[in-house]
Amino acid sequence: MANSIKPETAAGIKDYLPEEMIPRQQMMDKIRKTMELFGFVPLGTPVLEREEVLTGGDPDFSKQIFRIKSSEGLALRFDLTVPLARVVAGNPVSRPFKRYQVGPVFRGESPQFGRYREFFQFDADTVGSDSPMSDAEIIAVMYSTLKALEVPKFTVRVNSRKILNGLAAYAGFRNSMSADVLRVIDKLDKIGWDGVAGELEEKGLERPQIEAVKKFIDLRASSPRETLRAVGELMSNSPIAQEGVANLMAIADFVDALGVPADYWTIDLSIARGLSYYTGAVFETTLDEMSSIGSVFSGGRYDDLVDRFGAGIVPAVGASVGVDRLFAALEKLGLLKKQQATAEALVLNFDKSCEVAVNKATASLRQAGIRTEIYFGKENTLKAQLSYAVSREYRLVVIIGPRELATGTAQIRDLSNRTQKETPLGSVGQLASEIIK
Amino acid sequence: MANSIKPETAAGIKDYLPEEMIPRQQMMDKIRKTMELFGFVPLGTPVLEREEVLTGGDPDFSKQIFRIKSSEGLALRFDLTVPLARVVAGNPVSRPFKRYQVGPVFRGESPQFGRYREFFQFDADTVGSDSPMSDAEIIAVMYSTLKALEVPKFTVRVNSRKILNGLAAYAGFRNSMSADVLRVIDKLDKIGWDGVAGELEEKGLERPQIEAVKKFIDLRASSPRETLRAVGELMSNSPIAQEGVANLMAIADFVDALGVPADYWTIDLSIARGLSYYTGAVFETTLDEMSSIGSVFSGGRYDDLVDRFGAGIVPAVGASVGVDRLFAALEKLGLLKKQQATAEALVLNFDKSCEVAVNKATASLRQAGIRTEIYFGKENTLKAQLSYAVSREYRLVVIIGPRELATGTAQIRDLSNRTQKETPLGSVGQLASEIIK
Repeated sequence: MANSIKPETAAGIKDYLPEEMIPRQQMMDKIRKTMELFGFVPLGTPVLEREEVLTGGDPDFSKQIFRIKSSEGLALRFDLTVPLARVVAGNPVSRPFKRYQVGPVFRGESPQFGRYREFFQFDADTVGSDSPMSDAEIIAVMYSTLKALEVPKFTVRVNSRKILNGLAAYAGFRNSMSADVLRVIDKLDKIGWDGVAGELEEKGLERPQIEAVKKFIDLRASSPRETLRAVGELMSNSPIAQEGVANLMAIADFVDALGVPADYWTIDLSIARGLSYYTGAVFETTLDEMSSIGSVFSGGRYDDLVDRFGAGIVPAVGASVGVDRLFAALEKLGLLKKQQATAEALVLNFDKSCEVAVNKATASLRQAGIRTEIYFGKENTLKAQLSYAVSREYRLVVIIGPRELATGTAQIRDLSNRTQKETPLGSVGQLASEIIK
Repeated sequence: MANSIKPETAAGIKDYLPEEMIPRQQMMDKIRKTMELFGFVPLGTPVLEREEVLTGGDPDFSKQIFRIKSSEGLALRFDLTVPLARVVAGNPVSRPFKRYQVGPVFRGESPQFGRYREFFQFDADTVGSDSPMSDAEIIAVMYSTLKALEVPKFTVRVNSRKILNGLAAYAGFRNSMSADVLRVIDKLDKIGWDGVAGELEEKGLERPQIEAVKKFIDLRASSPRETLRAVGELMSNSPIAQEGVANLMAIADFVDALGVPADYWTIDLSIARGLSYYTGAVFETTLDEMSSIGSVFSGGRYDDLVDRFGAGIVPAVGASVGVDRLFAALEKLGLLKKQQATAEALVLNFDKSCEVAVNKATASLRQAGIRTEIYFGKENTLKAQLSYAVSREYRLVVIIGPRELATGTAQIRDLSNRTQKETPLGSVGQLASEIIK
């Protein structure tokens, strides 16, 4: 064509080529299996939502949204939680509604290095239960998912928005500053304590107030329950914080009962979660050997979100896997392997007179349940096609050339042990099955 | 909240609730498994593409596109084929590149009754081979996919753009009218022959030309090869049509060799496929018991598309499942079953003193690989929770009330045969496994 178009994605948006997509799907399959083990069922909601569904009139969100050029007011979802709240409010689904969902979400910010504007989330949420059992179950899902992915060691970090809401009374700043203070604390991982202290000062907090905040977020006793007891004492003047402590104590009992080992979860009072819709427990998960990448599985309780749609207060709790971040981490930890092909057998194809026989043999391999490709490439020598098979790591190579055709046979080479067997053309599928099983 | 927001999707855009999503996923899993059996590997490309990638400067496409409000020129993909061409042109992927992909695609037209603006496609394509073997393989994938979904009877309809390109010479109209004429023929299913004839007359075709078109699209002999021989004779004055006939003859040999039964595919000269990028064989698939819904699996050869990105001619062929249409058809045929839950066991939960034991039993069931939910609902009687379990079709119900707790036992009721067994609390997972296996 005269004016050719650059074959590029937009900035901050990426493709997943097969070598990455194959292990990525294996990861997704394991996440899905774990969520189904916990009784979550799949939900599908669209990428395109009515803009007001997403923003709820909140200007903080609207600036992050990709909007569609049209008079209809359509925009791309930025998470899977707000659409879930819409579904629960708008449909007669039986509650509690335990659903999982996976799909792309979008952030309409300017492209920045290392940040994607279209990325995948994999969420599990329970809508319609205010029991601490449902919070504990989400923590258990987070634990079981990462265990299923064979992550050697990780920590689910738990806090409560209710405890954080007691911070103003405890540290002596105005309640109206609470949201600002939490947003600053949320940056602790990225900017460190000195950065946090500086920003709190800019917001107008005085030195003793900042010291009180530091004392609070540094609290860490020998166990979750001990930490919670210490918080309870520290914040004895805040009824809302006491409520939060009691709630996390109850959650702790169920987390134990669900078999989450004590060294895989902790109370971390610095976890605030940026999203404004959280109302109770909040969760983050860091990989012990790679904590710098941040949380790979995060969430919390959001009892007010469904009411955005006039459905009254419907308690809800859930968490979301940052699929891309988790994938990058698992890859760095050597837990996933890049792969070019998933087929088990390649049928070579180097002589036009054998093409029909090659296709027949291929059909018999597939009939036997063996994932099989025919060589469709440009090389027409046995040697070149064999080295292609080796590079793509097929287990079996099936050879049907003029010599085999003349005798009505095929050669099956097992690349895993470099053995080769001859078989009548009609029995290729059967022999291949016997070799593989 | 004061101003509540309507919990609705936009017009022409829908949710998939679990009862529909569960069988939909089962369908998708089978499609994926079939494509992997044929050696296709997964690819992921973004929803958001650079607008010029999608339009290629073609005004026919651009009017169907959802565009993003921004100066960047972003838009939502309308299929998975154009992004595949971009990937192949822009990345050093080994060719032939056989990939499958599933995901939502978007059509930015005004909402119309019964037409969705966001819907799913599931594609398989082979890029980099011009062998008729690769065309035949796509036909075999179409056959095997619908067989895997247990569709009782369907027909893959095959034609060739090359044969259609000979129509002008054969029927005696100008070559420049060819695209218009094909677009009209493509509507045959919807508007019938009288509608087609009327529109062809409006386009300026004369009566004998229209009669010639009718004679052509009505051609149907006793077998694909006989039909092709008849077309070859009818269009003996068109070298391009002869080329198309020879190509489909070669494809027929491989379709046979791949084991596609003769009564599952046919030559249908009325199949044109609206998309302008097809260059060779084109495919549609109709379900014999439900042909009125149109094609559920369609595609063709498009040898020029990759060259949009300046990568030279890279031959390619593929087909796409209309996931939503196929799902609707399978549902009407009774081949899919709506389902509320996928969990196998429900642990009842009607007494606060038993909650920890309930959670422990649940953990042991999941440990044994049994998909298990705890009852998180509002009912607190055994009877109401049991009838919930029956309505959602769990296989097992586990009962731990104060009486069981006192004796350290649990009751496991098998709803499939209304039997009930008692077990020590520590052995719930084990007994449940024995019952299920």
